[in-house]
Amino acid sequence: MKLESLQYANRFDHVSGSAIRDIFKIIAQPGMISFAGGNPSLAALPDHQAAEIARQVLLDNGKAILQYGATEGYAPLLESLKSWIPATLGIDVPGILPVTGSTQAMDLLCKALINPGDRIIVENPSFLGNLQCMKLYQAELVPVDSEEDGLNTDHLEQLIREKHPKMIYTIPTFQNPTGRTLSLAKRKKVAELACEYGVIVAEDDPYRDLRYRGTSLPTIKSFDTEGWVVYLGSFSKIISPGMRVGYMIAEPGLLRKCIVGKQSSDLHTANLTQAIVDQFLRRNLLPEHIRKISADYAAQCDTMLSCLESFPSGISFTRPEGGLFIWVDLPECLDAQQLLLQAIERKVAFVPGTHFYALGGHPNTLRLNFSASTIPQICKGMAALRDVIEKSL
Amino acid sequence: MKLESLQYANRFDHVSGSAIRDIFKIIAQPGMISFAGGNPSLAALPDHQAAEIARQVLLDNGKAILQYGATEGYAPLLESLKSWIPATLGIDVPGILPVTGSTQAMDLLCKALINPGDRIIVENPSFLGNLQCMKLYQAELVPVDSEEDGLNTDHLEQLIREKHPKMIYTIPTFQNPTGRTLSLAKRKKVAELACEYGVIVAEDDPYRDLRYRGTSLPTIKSFDTEGWVVYLGSFSKIISPGMRVGYMIAEPGLLRKCIVGKQSSDLHTANLTQAIVDQFLRRNLLPEHIRKISADYAAQCDTMLSCLESFPSGISFTRPEGGLFIWVDLPECLDAQQLLLQAIERKVAFVPGTHFYALGGHPNTLRLNFSASTIPQICKGMAALRDVIEKSL
Repeated sequence: MKLESLQYANRFDHVSGSAIRDIFKIIAQPGMISFAGGNPSLAALPDHQAAEIARQVLLDNGKAILQYGATEGYAPLLESLKSWIPATLGIDVPGILPVTGSTQAMDLLCKALINPGDRIIVENPSFLGNLQCMKLYQAELVPVDSEEDGLNTDHLEQLIREKHPKMIYTIPTFQNPTGRTLSLAKRKKVAELACEYGVIVAEDDPYRDLRYRGTSLPTIKSFDTEGWVVYLGSFSKIISPGMRVGYMIAEPGLLRKCIVGKQSSDLHTANLTQAIVDQFLRRNLLPEHIRKISADYAAQCDTMLSCLESFPSGISFTRPEGGLFIWVDLPECLDAQQLLLQAIERKVAFVPGTHFYALGGHPNTLRLNFSASTIPQICKGMAALRDVIEKSL
Repeated sequence: MKLESLQYANRFDHVSGSAIRDIFKIIAQPGMISFAGGNPSLAALPDHQAAEIARQVLLDNGKAILQYGATEGYAPLLESLKSWIPATLGIDVPGILPVTGSTQAMDLLCKALINPGDRIIVENPSFLGNLQCMKLYQAELVPVDSEEDGLNTDHLEQLIREKHPKMIYTIPTFQNPTGRTLSLAKRKKVAELACEYGVIVAEDDPYRDLRYRGTSLPTIKSFDTEGWVVYLGSFSKIISPGMRVGYMIAEPGLLRKCIVGKQSSDLHTANLTQAIVDQFLRRNLLPEHIRKISADYAAQCDTMLSCLESFPSGISFTRPEGGLFIWVDLPECLDAQQLLLQAIERKVAFVPGTHFYALGGHPNTLRLNFSASTIPQICKGMAALRDVIEKSL
């Protein structure tokens, strides 16, 4: 029988792969200035430190690192996290699980909680990688209105009452893709609603340490009185995304389901990458490293914002206080997917905003990343982009 | 609302976590001789080599290793695999995907193929980690009779006709838990049946390189004319399980679904561990390393078999030509779970066989691992085990 007759699982009926990762391939041409990804700058990746640390942990504890590890996590990292998290996030740790990038945390949460047809409330727009994850679990995505200070909590409460969602997915700090931050009052309100109605909140917070101005806000989790909030953390933006180390903080019962799910996802996260992250925490290398990369990213962000100021009128954009992204609203007559084709000819790339909306639409929006480009690249790329937009108006 | 009211997903209704991993915790006591796990010996783990290699790859290519990688795999490893696999396995590579341990390959295959209620034919007994994975995808497990030279292909054909399975899961070489190897004729037959009836075969082959006697057999995949066989390979048993690097070989269409599934599982496997495996292949370190660890494991296996020869009559056991496990059939009056409690008091542990049967039962069976214990430990532990059994008869 020919393999063409093979039937795939229904969960793939409406999923064709991450659009953004396919864009990555198109733009992997030499000379391309990419505002498309969410990559740290190469300067921010601590390769020499990692080389020395990797060697040292393998010499010191190599047999344990190369042997099977516990699904629950590499013991020294667990120890480090349990002292680092209360100190930096100001929250207790009811339970914590190191994961293979916080991508896996979302996968495990969906595995633990989502039956086909269950509803998940998502910011509109939101991180498309995790939207795809939810779609593969055949969740129904329910978009909540989003505004300058994050999701609209009145609309959120209305949707909770009407739709009885299983989960609320939010990126409260320097959101992907908009760069917006959920206000303090709304953080409290989200936690209250979660506890009042009994809805899990997945608080995805990978950008929190990359703050360039303004004051840090408490996590939603810090206002959680009943345990409905699950906090997803990541070292991808502050150490290295290629190492794939993140963590999730949750109550023991829910965490246990995630651990059982992880037993058959990848058994455990690689011990070596966990051990490297452990050393970054144990040697207290992060504060200085974060200060350094934040200074660079702040300058890149400011440069991109300055460039945007000179764009034609009728274009608006967010002014994030941190993170990696700026969100642009174009006049309604423009289509960002068309613009992208023209921009690529001028050797500059971005992601059309429509991909970040659970239900599509919004063709006149786009996301810009400033972390992966140098200041000269930002100036050159933004000039080309302005030119492309001006010619299309 | 109290968190106790949280409802978990239906896929957990009949899954409570890997029994074997819970046994691991019980037996993690000092002085315990463990025949329970499937761990490589500590001597087999190349910590000094890995330390030097990790440092070197991070110095040479650290920025790329620490940056986001491609879901499709770290390019140098892909290159190495594409020359190593034809040379060692004698098969073409239609498509290959590095995965976070071959545990993840099974997860991605199920994600790509399995709807709730779909049937998967499994050897009886089989590897319980992957049985749990299939259960989490709500597959119906259909056990096929297994015998000295592997699964019974007549029974397999009958089950295919009657049950219309989506997949056949087999560990053809030095099977976990029995140590048995599927004969050449049956390998051909399994491939033929897969192609005739249009059923995916997951050929899980992590032990193949650990052969202590007899001659190597071709893979089932090598007899696959239509692309229905998916080959799962692993570096866990020949380099390090803690690094979590395996691979799957499949036709491009099916592999594409697995790649999309992997985008939301962990985005990509850690580049650093992929780079280390790449260096083991590129520097041709495996042949010598495998020769060395196989010589040690062969001696450990022979010691355990010699010990078993002195066990009371009425006990039978497999005589594997390689791998990590020996399977023991006790007289029907004995219950291996009861024996385990007594054995633990004598500081020796194993896994009761019932956990490896998709439908349970078979209380008078057990699995012994010889790779993780030294020869003196094997002699001491087997003497204690014989004593416990003799006293129970």
